[in-house]
Amino acid sequence: MNVYAHRIEQLRSMMRSKGWDAVIFTGSDPHNSEYPAPRWKQVEWLSGFTGEDGDLVITLDHAGLWTDTRYFIQANIQLEGSGVVLHKTRVPEQVLIPEWIEAQSSGNKDYIVALDGLCVSTEFVASLGGVTVVSVPDLLSLFWKDRPQIPQTPVYEIISGEDRNEKIAWLREVLSENGCDSILLTALDDIAWMLNVRASDIEYNPLSISYLLITREKVQWFVLKQDTVITVDLDGVEILPYESLQMQLNSEAESLGCLWTDSNSLNYEIFRFFSENNFETVFRPSPVQMRKAVKNDFEIRMMKESHLRDAIAMEKFLYWLEKSLENGETVSEKDAADYLELMRNRIGDYMGDSFQTISAYGKSAALPHYTTPSTGAPILERKGLYLCDAGGQYLSGTTDITRTIPLGECTPLEKEDYTLVLKGHIGLASAVFPSGTAGCQIDALARIPLWRNQRNFGHGTGHGVGFFLGCHEGPQNVRQNFNSTPLLPGMVISDEPGIYREGLHGVRHENLLLVCEAGSNEFGYWLKFEPLTMCHFDTSIIDSALLNEEEKKWLNAYNASVYDNLSPYLNEEIKDWLAEKTKAIQ
Amino acid sequence: MNVYAHRIEQLRSMMRSKGWDAVIFTGSDPHNSEYPAPRWKQVEWLSGFTGEDGDLVITLDHAGLWTDTRYFIQANIQLEGSGVVLHKTRVPEQVLIPEWIEAQSSGNKDYIVALDGLCVSTEFVASLGGVTVVSVPDLLSLFWKDRPQIPQTPVYEIISGEDRNEKIAWLREVLSENGCDSILLTALDDIAWMLNVRASDIEYNPLSISYLLITREKVQWFVLKQDTVITVDLDGVEILPYESLQMQLNSEAESLGCLWTDSNSLNYEIFRFFSENNFETVFRPSPVQMRKAVKNDFEIRMMKESHLRDAIAMEKFLYWLEKSLENGETVSEKDAADYLELMRNRIGDYMGDSFQTISAYGKSAALPHYTTPSTGAPILERKGLYLCDAGGQYLSGTTDITRTIPLGECTPLEKEDYTLVLKGHIGLASAVFPSGTAGCQIDALARIPLWRNQRNFGHGTGHGVGFFLGCHEGPQNVRQNFNSTPLLPGMVISDEPGIYREGLHGVRHENLLLVCEAGSNEFGYWLKFEPLTMCHFDTSIIDSALLNEEEKKWLNAYNASVYDNLSPYLNEEIKDWLAEKTKAIQ
Repeated sequence: MNVYAHRIEQLRSMMRSKGWDAVIFTGSDPHNSEYPAPRWKQVEWLSGFTGEDGDLVITLDHAGLWTDTRYFIQANIQLEGSGVVLHKTRVPEQVLIPEWIEAQSSGNKDYIVALDGLCVSTEFVASLGGVTVVSVPDLLSLFWKDRPQIPQTPVYEIISGEDRNEKIAWLREVLSENGCDSILLTALDDIAWMLNVRASDIEYNPLSISYLLITREKVQWFVLKQDTVITVDLDGVEILPYESLQMQLNSEAESLGCLWTDSNSLNYEIFRFFSENNFETVFRPSPVQMRKAVKNDFEIRMMKESHLRDAIAMEKFLYWLEKSLENGETVSEKDAADYLELMRNRIGDYMGDSFQTISAYGKSAALPHYTTPSTGAPILERKGLYLCDAGGQYLSGTTDITRTIPLGECTPLEKEDYTLVLKGHIGLASAVFPSGTAGCQIDALARIPLWRNQRNFGHGTGHGVGFFLGCHEGPQNVRQNFNSTPLLPGMVISDEPGIYREGLHGVRHENLLLVCEAGSNEFGYWLKFEPLTMCHFDTSIIDSALLNEEEKKWLNAYNASVYDNLSPYLNEEIKDWLAEKTKAIQ
Repeated sequence: MNVYAHRIEQLRSMMRSKGWDAVIFTGSDPHNSEYPAPRWKQVEWLSGFTGEDGDLVITLDHAGLWTDTRYFIQANIQLEGSGVVLHKTRVPEQVLIPEWIEAQSSGNKDYIVALDGLCVSTEFVASLGGVTVVSVPDLLSLFWKDRPQIPQTPVYEIISGEDRNEKIAWLREVLSENGCDSILLTALDDIAWMLNVRASDIEYNPLSISYLLITREKVQWFVLKQDTVITVDLDGVEILPYESLQMQLNSEAESLGCLWTDSNSLNYEIFRFFSENNFETVFRPSPVQMRKAVKNDFEIRMMKESHLRDAIAMEKFLYWLEKSLENGETVSEKDAADYLELMRNRIGDYMGDSFQTISAYGKSAALPHYTTPSTGAPILERKGLYLCDAGGQYLSGTTDITRTIPLGECTPLEKEDYTLVLKGHIGLASAVFPSGTAGCQIDALARIPLWRNQRNFGHGTGHGVGFFLGCHEGPQNVRQNFNSTPLLPGMVISDEPGIYREGLHGVRHENLLLVCEAGSNEFGYWLKFEPLTMCHFDTSIIDSALLNEEEKKWLNAYNASVYDNLSPYLNEEIKDWLAEKTKAIQ
């Protein structure tokens, strides 16, 4: 019996003693964060599965992990010996957890499902109709002896171009306009944005695990954990223990009036607390999301700065990579990722990566979410394609870039895929569109060059990016799925089409784009994109017959602007190399 | 006091005697048809307004017409002297009827709103919260003395490639699968499709005004009006009086079980009847809509045939137009429309037009829904652009085509607009896309060439088209508005981008496209379009610098195929002319 099977058996003992029929672990942390802190990696602790998306159901005679197509191979390997069975999702024959539970309970209303309400969304609990749900906060703590604490890293203030008190005044006005008196912010990036603070509680995300309550009179930040203190002095913001939220809400209940909260980041425990105590609540998307997505002038100026710095690191990395291979040095995927980190580390305000670098050579890159092994990573050869998708967190902003680099001779298919994906990238990057347009209405512009050649990619084309915050943020995106959020001037999105061929190669070209005004006329108000990312696209394997004149013009102008922007910061050797790399193509 | 003001006063006398505070006329006919028969042109009879979209509200001291941007100018002219005030919709400051009524009633629940429930949708009535609604079927008949009867034109059977009984068996199976026992079809095109019948009750639409009830045992067609008879013998279909629907439903109530109906074409009177009599009903989109939209092999073959015939008429018309102007003859917009009708009339199975021909010269074409005057129509000159948007009803199918024709010297702006719209047309027509794609996900392909030049058009890019049925049919379309209906092989859509410049000119290029399979590979199943419409695009004023190689290739191939397809049916003179017109451009 392996360690996971043993843990599951321990859980089952508890289930028997409590009379529970099933236990479910789903969601992430109490804030529905994209990256949970180690304390909330409950699925991993119980099953060994480390994929980003996976839900676990344990009954007395079955243990199942629900995950999607991206993780089937990984799950099969990691679950071996644990006794946990893979349940596939995003396949036609899928049976999702609510249906599966329904079948298990066969209509018995006394079938008891236990879960940790802190880490489960209200919607999920609502989907479990016809059974009895028992919420046990921190239920795993009962026998996860060395379970990590809730993290508390130092909090620091940042400059964001807008005063904290202005933001709070704005939010209070929004509350008034919507007939609300107070708001509980539960999404960690909302809170960081509101208070102009950052921390390092979560990997890759400069966030502090906390709740923020703003009423007409008070601003209360529930952030203190264990016996730590916050050294930063946030004038007018009351600093309270993280665990005291419900107690405080209860004692303030009278003055809260109508309380706004966003069910998307609200965990079931707080939801239950609100409804059991008859709070007057309205559940609506947090107004901070949209406001935060639209960068102010200061943030835009800073993000251009961080992208310039990031690009210098990228170009130095790409130069080193080419020269190292030319010199016959052995470079693994891991070595490459490390060198890029080293280059970024030399930049003043670099605070770490914004996600784990995908450094993928050849067939590794066929997995869009490839994880580079820390030991025994594949060695780069002087042929084919190398893909590097990496992002940095800088005080001046968050970056996210993907470049696909030919390391030598490439196959005709590699060249075609490389060129078609670039064509797709340019299709979106060069778009002009009327004010009011949503990302899903222009997603096809990045896909049509691929579609015409009967190729496609299975992920979204673009996501929002924060200002020294999450590398993925809403509410806007560029995907096939309907999302009515319009692209507004000041928003940032990624533009990252790709093609992935199992066992062969992967191509992705990604820049971050800033939405900008493009004037108005009798036909309306116009918007366009301006690339924030400033790193050349390699032109050596472009099949120029596949690009039309407008596309070549865009590419040449972009590469020229990369040279113009970066050359003052590069030494002669790299400058000459970049001049060569950014030469216009015919 | 003009005739309309007088009629409104008559209505007000009745309102006073009945104690009604407001009367509303909205919707079209009892089947929510796009084109109502004269009997149901109630808004026109009361106000003089003939626009396709207009709702009328009359109170004791106010009469208002609600209509959108397309009809502001027309409404201002037509309402003069009637005392009816224009209420603008689709403008930011709009106050729609429900809000307006709410303000009038100022919370008084006894405020009485009367309406003709036969011609109003259930959704609309539901939107009138907080007032008392009185439904009076045919309320205008009380003092509209010469009100037209419900039309009854001869019914005839058509060949559709699928037997009526097969269709009925299919529908009964759908009912079973959905836990229903019977269905009431209320949309006239659904009924015509189900029974393989056509008639001429409605202008431009080969439909018979009727209801169709299909139960497990019976097929009952409520179609007989006044004392007419139906001479066609539909084996197994019971023919019943149109007015007897509710009586019959009542007497059959036991055997109906769970009854499916589509609230989109169900009028409020029947809805009220169902709920007051406690029928077990489910309201869902009619399954016939989707099935009808996917043409079978026979229908596809026939539609190609009807488009060939229509194209011959179009080319003869275009040849005549050019020669007439060359010869210095006087040709008005009306003359041109008449000549096209004459050409179509010479074709064996032509049954009439599928909508009123838009024959628009110069600035007339700047109105997308221009109505050519029957007398005093503008004369065509030997310069600028002439736009003709016309469709035919043939036993072999429905057509819809727009061509924009340069009549001589054109301005640089006319040339640019002409070319950019063609670029948009080709962008959609040449698309390849994965199975599952909805029209709104590729709408941008027709707009992006316009957008890049900061031009746009305010209507949808494409609509579905019936097989010798409505020229507009759902459920698919190609628009900016979200509509999740996927484009399926066998569906037909129009591709009609445009540019409209007030006081100057209008450009629109429209073909009908058939959705076809394009094979499958590791990336999925692929679809593409095949043009059904076969009429050349004039290349003489194309600004070829604006077209890329792929677009020129598409255009040259299309024009060549027009020549190949049509030349066997044209005389030498027109054939030579067409050869010249379809020459490849560089």
